[in-house]
Amino acid sequence: MDGVKALFFDVFGTVVDWRTSVAREARVLLEPRGYSLDWLAFADAWRAEYQPGMEEVRSGRLPFARLDVIHRRMLDRIVPKFDLGKLDETTLRNLNLAWHRLDAWPDSTRGLHRLREKYFIAPVSNGNIALMVDLARRNDFRWDTILGAEIAGDYKPKPRVYLAAAEALALEPGQCMMVAAHSDDLAAAASNGLRTAHVARPNEHGPGKGEPGPTVPVDVAASSFEDLADRIV
Amino acid sequence: MDGVKALFFDVFGTVVDWRTSVAREARVLLEPRGYSLDWLAFADAWRAEYQPGMEEVRSGRLPFARLDVIHRRMLDRIVPKFDLGKLDETTLRNLNLAWHRLDAWPDSTRGLHRLREKYFIAPVSNGNIALMVDLARRNDFRWDTILGAEIAGDYKPKPRVYLAAAEALALEPGQCMMVAAHSDDLAAAASNGLRTAHVARPNEHGPGKGEPGPTVPVDVAASSFEDLADRIV
Repeated sequence: MDGVKALFFDVFGTVVDWRTSVAREARVLLEPRGYSLDWLAFADAWRAEYQPGMEEVRSGRLPFARLDVIHRRMLDRIVPKFDLGKLDETTLRNLNLAWHRLDAWPDSTRGLHRLREKYFIAPVSNGNIALMVDLARRNDFRWDTILGAEIAGDYKPKPRVYLAAAEALALEPGQCMMVAAHSDDLAAAASNGLRTAHVARPNEHGPGKGEPGPTVPVDVAASSFEDLADRIV
Repeated sequence: MDGVKALFFDVFGTVVDWRTSVAREARVLLEPRGYSLDWLAFADAWRAEYQPGMEEVRSGRLPFARLDVIHRRMLDRIVPKFDLGKLDETTLRNLNLAWHRLDAWPDSTRGLHRLREKYFIAPVSNGNIALMVDLARRNDFRWDTILGAEIAGDYKPKPRVYLAAAEALALEPGQCMMVAAHSDDLAAAASNGLRTAHVARPNEHGPGKGEPGPTVPVDVAASSFEDLADRIV
């Protein structure tokens, strides 16, 4: 890892388990109000609107908006499917903040603390700053700062997001390593000159539904954040 | 402090002692090269170019550039005065990074840790992100994220800097409190709707040369970060 000074982290799916967390948060909020959904299917359906929601910004059809805003648009699109049309605005807003209450994968926090001993660490996520701050507080992530979409004014995998992150730390792209559980994110990072590390999250979308390993060339392939720390700290 | 969720910190002079730190760093770098300056006068002269350097951006005469770039312009302006014209480029670049190696006032780190127990904490400084990251690592500041000029694309006391910081945390200005040792910074923050806390740094520019108290109305006037924590945590 000669010359690497900073590690940039994808967050949803890589650092935190969005699926079971969103399912739990939706249940906690809606079950007392008499709703009985397939909570994991609800989480999956919400997340399925993610790429289409961001593509409206990446393509220029809509101006940049923070992910909190995109999450709400995504939610509004699935409200009819889950018969949630009678929820009041306050409840919908609170439900939208489920994404601020995600739990880390079991190895993330300890792994990040170890990685921080040698590298600057920062999220380079499509999540907005307030959301990242809440996840950090909840899970004891000690980021050096929060980078990513809101700094860049665009969404991954647009080049600007990776390059703006490197520039913010006054580093060359080759001094930065993108860490993600998603090969498409790593491919985009590599094409912009960053180093890459894949971390396997084989159950991100449910048991056996995640990337057990990279499908593109990477500098490091790790089974967890602890494993990544074993390899590069 | 009803409703205040986040504390925003001025850094140079408020959190860190730039004057004796820059003097020390300049001496460490230049004395072995045979230079014998009045090191404190050198630090003062460099800092004296600060407002003019930023005003070129605030006024629109020059496009936004990170403070590292402004610091270098400021340095180049005082090179003749201190007869440093023969320094090589590598040494000048290293000297410019003296601002990344500033030490905290004795109460800052402990006070910030206590304030963080109740509030989000972030620098809202004119310093750039890389500079703030280095100061945080050096002094164990545990910021939730780094806000300020580089996020806003302009320099304090322009309104955009305060407002962009609040927006990044998804807060209203009135939910944010600016903490500074400089009454002009606090007056600007207040005029944009933020709450304000003054921290006395009576020796910022040398013994007895600093603000012993606010010269404008503030919500809290404290003698140190520990005193501020005693009052609002």
